[in-house]
Amino acid sequence: MTPRTILLDCDPGTDDAIALWLALASPELALRMVTVAGGNVGLERTLPNARAVLGLAGSAVPVLAGADRPLIGRFRSETAVHGVDGLGGVVLPEGPPAAPGLASDAIRAELRAAAPGSVTLLGLGPATNFALALATEPFLADRVAEIVLMTGAVGEGNWTEAAEFNAAMDPEALMVLLRCGRPVTLATLDLTAQALVTPERVATLRAAPGGRCLAATAGILAALPPSRRFGHRGAPLHDPCAVAWLLAPDLFIHRPVAAEVVRDGADRGRTRIDRWGRNPLPRNACLLERLDADRFFALLAERIGRLP
Amino acid sequence: MTPRTILLDCDPGTDDAIALWLALASPELALRMVTVAGGNVGLERTLPNARAVLGLAGSAVPVLAGADRPLIGRFRSETAVHGVDGLGGVVLPEGPPAAPGLASDAIRAELRAAAPGSVTLLGLGPATNFALALATEPFLADRVAEIVLMTGAVGEGNWTEAAEFNAAMDPEALMVLLRCGRPVTLATLDLTAQALVTPERVATLRAAPGGRCLAATAGILAALPPSRRFGHRGAPLHDPCAVAWLLAPDLFIHRPVAAEVVRDGADRGRTRIDRWGRNPLPRNACLLERLDADRFFALLAERIGRLP
Amino acid sequence: MTPRTILLDCDPGTDDAIALWLALASPELALRMVTVAGGNVGLERTLPNARAVLGLAGSAVPVLAGADRPLIGRFRSETAVHGVDGLGGVVLPEGPPAAPGLASDAIRAELRAAAPGSVTLLGLGPATNFALALATEPFLADRVAEIVLMTGAVGEGNWTEAAEFNAAMDPEALMVLLRCGRPVTLATLDLTAQALVTPERVATLRAAPGGRCLAATAGILAALPPSRRFGHRGAPLHDPCAVAWLLAPDLFIHRPVAAEVVRDGADRGRTRIDRWGRNPLPRNACLLERLDADRFFALLAERIGRLP
Amino acid sequence: MTPRTILLDCDPGTDDAIALWLALASPELALRMVTVAGGNVGLERTLPNARAVLGLAGSAVPVLAGADRPLIGRFRSETAVHGVDGLGGVVLPEGPPAAPGLASDAIRAELRAAAPGSVTLLGLGPATNFALALATEPFLADRVAEIVLMTGAVGEGNWTEAAEFNAAMDPEALMVLLRCGRPVTLATLDLTAQALVTPERVATLRAAPGGRCLAATAGILAALPPSRRFGHRGAPLHDPCAVAWLLAPDLFIHRPVAAEVVRDGADRGRTRIDRWGRNPLPRNACLLERLDADRFFALLAERIGRLP
Repeated sequence: MTPRTILLDCDPGTDDAIALWLALASPELALRMVTVAGGNVGLERTLPNARAVLGLAGSAVPVLAGADRPLIGRFRSETAVHGVDGLGGVVLPEGPPAAPGLASDAIRAELRAAAPGSVTLLGLGPATNFALALATEPFLADRVAEIVLMTGAVGEGNWTEAAEFNAAMDPEALMVLLRCGRPVTLATLDLTAQALVTPERVATLRAAPGGRCLAATAGILAALPPSRRFGHRGAPLHDPCAVAWLLAPDLFIHRPVAAEVVRDGADRGRTRIDRWGRNPLPRNACLLERLDADRFFALLAERIGRLP
Repeated sequence: MTPRTILLDCDPGTDDAIALWLALASPELALRMVTVAGGNVGLERTLPNARAVLGLAGSAVPVLAGADRPLIGRFRSETAVHGVDGLGGVVLPEGPPAAPGLASDAIRAELRAAAPGSVTLLGLGPATNFALALATEPFLADRVAEIVLMTGAVGEGNWTEAAEFNAAMDPEALMVLLRCGRPVTLATLDLTAQALVTPERVATLRAAPGGRCLAATAGILAALPPSRRFGHRGAPLHDPCAVAWLLAPDLFIHRPVAAEVVRDGADRGRTRIDRWGRNPLPRNACLLERLDADRFFALLAERIGRLP
Repeated sequence: MTPRTILLDCDPGTDDAIALWLALASPELALRMVTVAGGNVGLERTLPNARAVLGLAGSAVPVLAGADRPLIGRFRSETAVHGVDGLGGVVLPEGPPAAPGLASDAIRAELRAAAPGSVTLLGLGPATNFALALATEPFLADRVAEIVLMTGAVGEGNWTEAAEFNAAMDPEALMVLLRCGRPVTLATLDLTAQALVTPERVATLRAAPGGRCLAATAGILAALPPSRRFGHRGAPLHDPCAVAWLLAPDLFIHRPVAAEVVRDGADRGRTRIDRWGRNPLPRNACLLERLDADRFFALLAERIGRLP
Repeated sequence: MTPRTILLDCDPGTDDAIALWLALASPELALRMVTVAGGNVGLERTLPNARAVLGLAGSAVPVLAGADRPLIGRFRSETAVHGVDGLGGVVLPEGPPAAPGLASDAIRAELRAAAPGSVTLLGLGPATNFALALATEPFLADRVAEIVLMTGAVGEGNWTEAAEFNAAMDPEALMVLLRCGRPVTLATLDLTAQALVTPERVATLRAAPGGRCLAATAGILAALPPSRRFGHRGAPLHDPCAVAWLLAPDLFIHRPVAAEVVRDGADRGRTRIDRWGRNPLPRNACLLERLDADRFFALLAERIGRLP
């Protein structure tokens, strides 16, 4: 099978780091480029983090700096979850330098050179970089096969009660993607809540065969603060869920939905996801509803174990 | 222990009927009055239903007609859940006649005659009747000990993706109660989803000792259409949860929250429930978060089994 | 011609006082009752003010206390315009005592006793009292011939940039009236801006023949702070415009419109008035668009001059 | 005096054409580039129109194609005002070809090459092109001296009752500009309503000395459908007001305001303009409040009369 061409955008971020390693370790994905935005922490941390994550894996995929702020306003950091450095205190060697140029320009260039329906956009942070590319040249949407995003929530948010962090950081950008005409697959908080990092799962992962990337993965997971939302039983592992969808769709139950995002007022960043066809909006998204978590963590260990 | 003085407002409705029997069967509650609004079905059905439910239990508690429409607009029926008659096809003998007068006036009169902090308002339908009473004479709020409502949702709604049915029917009225100055306890969809009516639970209930009310309860539960939201494993049993809170609070885990309700736009009826203190609003409500469902259904059978 | 039966609700308030005198002086109007809410200042001031205004006119129309707060939240005073006493510093002798009972109950009783389509509701303050009556007994709307309100704004508000004061004080109540099924005539800020109280107009009024009520009118008008919105050329005279509509409709140009009021968020209290049929909502209101201001002030002087 | 460096963005459009001629005829403005978006009519018409307008004036300023849709959704044409061709039926000879490249890229390149605070952005259509440039490279905002836009409304809109056309077409883009950190001067509908095109003013303009551009201006103005909003006395002339601000600020009275734009719901595109400091938002805009219309039309005739 020909690997899928992937443009990956992220804001590492603990879970982004693991998602990146999962993607790099997987032959099903041909990662063309990693673009970085601010988000979980500022761009001055997310960019070195991305470089370090790729460096540890020995990857030569180009890394590009992107948006240091959303379309409107500014990013807010989540250092309570990701630590001030964004990797939860895990220290990685410095990675290779970033490639020159701006993320959204590079995304446009990649899409312009691609065949129709041939590129998958994989977004793990605020939607800013992808949105800038597609809003600047809307016809490039036809080069896109699928947009896969870790973002949104059917139920309660994790930034406000209404909004998930990535959606809250740049709801206008997310709306650009949801309205670009291409199918958007959503790994929401409701899904990632099923990928709970428990002490048992960390222990299993530690015991699995692998190199420094798997060790770093275990270190990052072990440092994740258990969430009060889940009775402190563990922390949800967000971003790798979106990557796993591209590797093992049979781990998921999914459903076509209508999705949009609130931009004004107290609910800014809330994703309005109509699962039951109660409103007449077109079904522009695919909601990942259920995850086989045990197989997901097994996949994580097996794949990242292949890396150095 | 002195029983709690209860004013109960409802819109039977299958689950209202069972909630009424649960309240009538419980010596901890001194039910002063049952007021009825339109809601699950029209008032022309909910009022006879309430009378029949009380009649079957041999109760002499007065039943009064209340609002046949919300503060703004009109009620919409949920016949898909409650059947066109509102009792899911279970036929009860006609009950005693309704007492004269209007629900909100009678509620005002009861409160006016009551001691401060002595009355519990128990609302199982749209909040219209209680809201009219408290908005007309706001100082009567100090007669209220607690307002307990089956309404709202932290997660997905059941009328729109945003809104639970009762909240959607009269969000302005619900907001009146949430801002009246007295504590409001909320049994939301997230809680009632834990009270899933499964074939096993219906069978257990059928086997329990009791009279015609328990038999009718079993009949109603057996007729509830299993919900696609729960993979057709069963249907959530909403209203009795709110009654159970007054009988056995140790069945619940709860949390103080700030709560309000959206009145405009696509999210009309959405309850904004801040569980984590992320916004600076005062904590005006108590959210019932977890239910011990097995003990809840056992309570239901034991209590309703005491009725004729 | 048979005079029109009027229920007048107000929150005096400088302009309410003048509107009351205009109504009392006019044989076209049979004023059945004056109900009072808080608003421009608190109910503890608006009620004595209403009593004093009627007393000065030698009127025996009953005055009743109504809402001291809106359906949701609380009233906020506009003492910058109305002074701390609500009459801009003009001191009137104490008036007759208030009639017993609650405004909304009395309004319901009046409507219940009235023939279909026979009563005009004239609202000069927050819509609370009328809304409570009609929300409690919605079928009473059919006794109403017309609802005439000083409220709302097509353009800029005077409480926030979005909202006019009366609408902002109780938007839920205003929405009840706009959706009650009876035609609502709106004297908005855009109209009352045409009734500018200039020094010349005050001088003319002072020179007109009349008694103590006209003198008090001149005193109140002279004390109105000129508005920066109008380059300090004068102050808009709000409430008497709504009364004048009932006396001399030929002073006005009007237009059927669709009207509703925003209840959530930053624009709370904004009236959405579609003059041009751009949305598909039914035309539930009549917008007073133009006023012949010179004839309006002449009417004011001539009518109030008839009073003691 | 050194002329101001101008990047002009437009969607001709009848009033855009006149605004362009006004800018081209004025030595105070050094027009570097004209970028075009869809808007009044589709880009497939606005681009040839812009080229023809420049061609008629003998201008060699480069014209570049920009956005054919807003950040979210699509443009909607206003052919009722601008005709199906966008110039109200006035036919101009075909102009020079468009310069290669995309508008937002060219704007970024111009800004990148400019000194801090040296460039004025003059926007006469939907804000899309400028917003894409500034959102892609937010630090370029410091090259901007001032952003001058014909957009928004304090009072009633002309697309919906809430929203002015340009703001309604791309509210997200307008919000990008309002939040970019540079002062935004707004020529809103409230201002342009003061620039009413009456038969007398058209006649005066026809009688003024000038060439084919002035003749075309007169032809376009004569074809403007008189607006019912102004009692069919004339039509407001929008875009040239924004240009005039750069030429003759003494024709205007202005005020610092806080401005933002509604993006969700029924009021999408409404500009929230706080003239009176009622909310605590920073004053990020300058509202043009009053126009000396006679001198404005005289300026128009005198300047455009200088062109061929």
